Amino acid sequence: MKNRLFFEHNFSDELFNFAKQEAEHIGFWRLVDENLSKYVSFADEVSQKCIAIIGIGGSSLGVEAIYNFLRPKFEYEKSLIFLDTTDPIQLSTQLEKIDLSATLFFVISKSGTTIESIASLKYLDHILQFSKNNLVVITDQGSPLEKFGLERGSSIFHIPESVGGRYSVLSVVGLLPLASIGVDIQELINGAKEIKSDFLRGDFPEVVSKALFFGENRNTYGMNALFSYSSLLKSFNEWYVQLWGESLGKVRKDGEAIGLTPIGLIGPKDQHSFLQLLMEGKKDKSVTFIKIKDMDSHLSIPVVSLSNLENLDIINGISFEELINLQASSTLEALKNSGVPTDVLELEDISERSIGKLIFYFEILTTLTAEVMEIEPYRQDGVELGKTILKKKLAET
Amino acid sequence: MKNRLFFEHNFSDELFNFAKQEAEHIGFWRLVDENLSKYVSFADEVSQKCIAIIGIGGSSLGVEAIYNFLRPKFEYEKSLIFLDTTDPIQLSTQLEKIDLSATLFFVISKSGTTIESIASLKYLDHILQFSKNNLVVITDQGSPLEKFGLERGSSIFHIPESVGGRYSVLSVVGLLPLASIGVDIQELINGAKEIKSDFLRGDFPEVVSKALFFGENRNTYGMNALFSYSSLLKSFNEWYVQLWGESLGKVRKDGEAIGLTPIGLIGPKDQHSFLQLLMEGKKDKSVTFIKIKDMDSHLSIPVVSLSNLENLDIINGISFEELINLQASSTLEALKNSGVPTDVLELEDISERSIGKLIFYFEILTTLTAEVMEIEPYRQDGVELGKTILKKKLAET
Repeated sequence: MKNRLFFEHNFSDELFNFAKQEAEHIGFWRLVDENLSKYVSFADEVSQKCIAIIGIGGSSLGVEAIYNFLRPKFEYEKSLIFLDTTDPIQLSTQLEKIDLSATLFFVISKSGTTIESIASLKYLDHILQFSKNNLVVITDQGSPLEKFGLERGSSIFHIPESVGGRYSVLSVVGLLPLASIGVDIQELINGAKEIKSDFLRGDFPEVVSKALFFGENRNTYGMNALFSYSSLLKSFNEWYVQLWGESLGKVRKDGEAIGLTPIGLIGPKDQHSFLQLLMEGKKDKSVTFIKIKDMDSHLSIPVVSLSNLENLDIINGISFEELINLQASSTLEALKNSGVPTDVLELEDISERSIGKLIFYFEILTTLTAEVMEIEPYRQDGVELGKTILKKKLAET
Repeated sequence: MKNRLFFEHNFSDELFNFAKQEAEHIGFWRLVDENLSKYVSFADEVSQKCIAIIGIGGSSLGVEAIYNFLRPKFEYEKSLIFLDTTDPIQLSTQLEKIDLSATLFFVISKSGTTIESIASLKYLDHILQFSKNNLVVITDQGSPLEKFGLERGSSIFHIPESVGGRYSVLSVVGLLPLASIGVDIQELINGAKEIKSDFLRGDFPEVVSKALFFGENRNTYGMNALFSYSSLLKSFNEWYVQLWGESLGKVRKDGEAIGLTPIGLIGPKDQHSFLQLLMEGKKDKSVTFIKIKDMDSHLSIPVVSLSNLENLDIINGISFEELINLQASSTLEALKNSGVPTDVLELEDISERSIGKLIFYFEILTTLTAEVMEIEPYRQDGVELGKTILKKKLAET
């Protein structure tokens, strides 16, 4: 994976050293050293053709990002669905599509008391009577959900203590369901591991430089758009939005409200939606492009001339893969020429290794950017007030 | 449809009068008076079970917003797909799913030379040989695409001259494909018409007040989040992002770069992704909630107590519809208490009329906000540079 920066940037030894210390004791850094055999053995025993995840936010976005990136290419025999809402229409539509009795459910909740997930759990338990045969529980050690699972005889897996929800995709949270549908999780971890060691060896200085730039210029460029030129990265964008938004939207110790706002875009679609604003609107955004070098697709534009549309014969004979990547380069160039800070990440291919790299890259970048802004990237206390109000309203109904 | 504003707001007679004048001569205002019989007769003759739209941006986002809002409830017998990309993986996946020879294609492009759409057109023409039997052309009068369509004997429909792409969904652009799959387009227009007349009669002063607030406070609240509490509104959010971003991201005559940045959120999912940033990050965003009062769903949380999870018995017996709407109210209240300007739009139900209202409401709001900021909401000159660079790159390959 290459990262080229098209803005003036510096390196900081201090920040780099901070990262090296973090790598020694912060949870997500150490996930790449886990022995995966227990997940693989578990997955080998899964007989169901459908896996459903009951989980929301950090308990589902990462798994979804990886699954949707890989699925069209790898055509897994098993399917994965995400029950991540209280929306009755979405729930009904999803449940109608699957054979409930032939589905293995993973309920994933760090606290074990996530209201959306428990609502779905109650609904499904009423129909299915959960037992060790159809329910797996992934939660914090000692949570109420763990105790519920134990009573039902379910397999229980613990979320590592020092790993926050949005940094947990490379732990059991992501690895167990992904292994269960046939994803090569060792390759996924290998990708993350490669970025980690490249970075710690000093071979990936761009991460430090970007964090420094984003953090120091937060009042000029308060928004960071991720312009991914592949529909496969749509769910990845959503994972990024949570990671960036929840980690970097914080009140600092000195009382200043800090926030870098993430925006997920898909190319070329959003050239026809968001580009005008990036080009001519207030220059308050940086834009990171993601390209996939080799999409392993042979779809090409045929060499045909359409009557009256001969001006567009310039695209004849090129592959769609080449066209979309040229569109990415052209949009980047236009933004760069207009004074927008841009950079580009190029993935080698569509593989477990590539998405593993991308995920770990963003986890490092996020925590370093937080450090530059002097905020803490692992908590999310701001969401509590809404929960308290909801409980009050529920008690009143 | 009700709109309640939870921030200090004023009314402006001047702005209201401006709107009344616009309504007399600006294209999108007048679409509600069109006679729809020609679309209905055309639709009656469509025998294909699948309709595919070749179009991007303003040529597809609006149709997709309406279709995805209505589809789960109305279960149309015909399906609609959107070919809106040059992404080879997405294109292959989409085309594999349909029977190409039993599909009616609508190619929609205002200029008639949109590169993404012509690329798909070329690809499909090579396989299918487009003719009057499988291709309908919707474009500007006199465009190269119109001439191409005429040579093939296709039905040709013109986009009204004074209606820009992102304001065109209630014209032939949206109405013809929607009628062709069985949507009641008269009801759709009736909804828009109702908002128009309510507004012009002075019964919808909130639109004026909101535009005034958003425009005048653009340097404080530079971002406007739309928090839709229904998965049915996911594509609507995308339509809104284009409408808002392309209309309000402009260089003003005095040289100032103006931009209000739209953000589309879905509840409750994004409570677990974006809410932390809204609550504790920099207070630079306003948040508009959308709720659906009656989802016509009977899905309820059963009255069961799960061992160790008894604390969550507070949700027992309530419907999911009630729960999701309580979540919306609770999140709104939490944001309001934290000093975030919020408002809520409440749709009556899931119907053509409701989505017609919502669309027209946002079209008025957008153009009035542009007026407050003294910019022109209908052009998008900023996207041209990228196109020019792409053409240069293509000529070099």
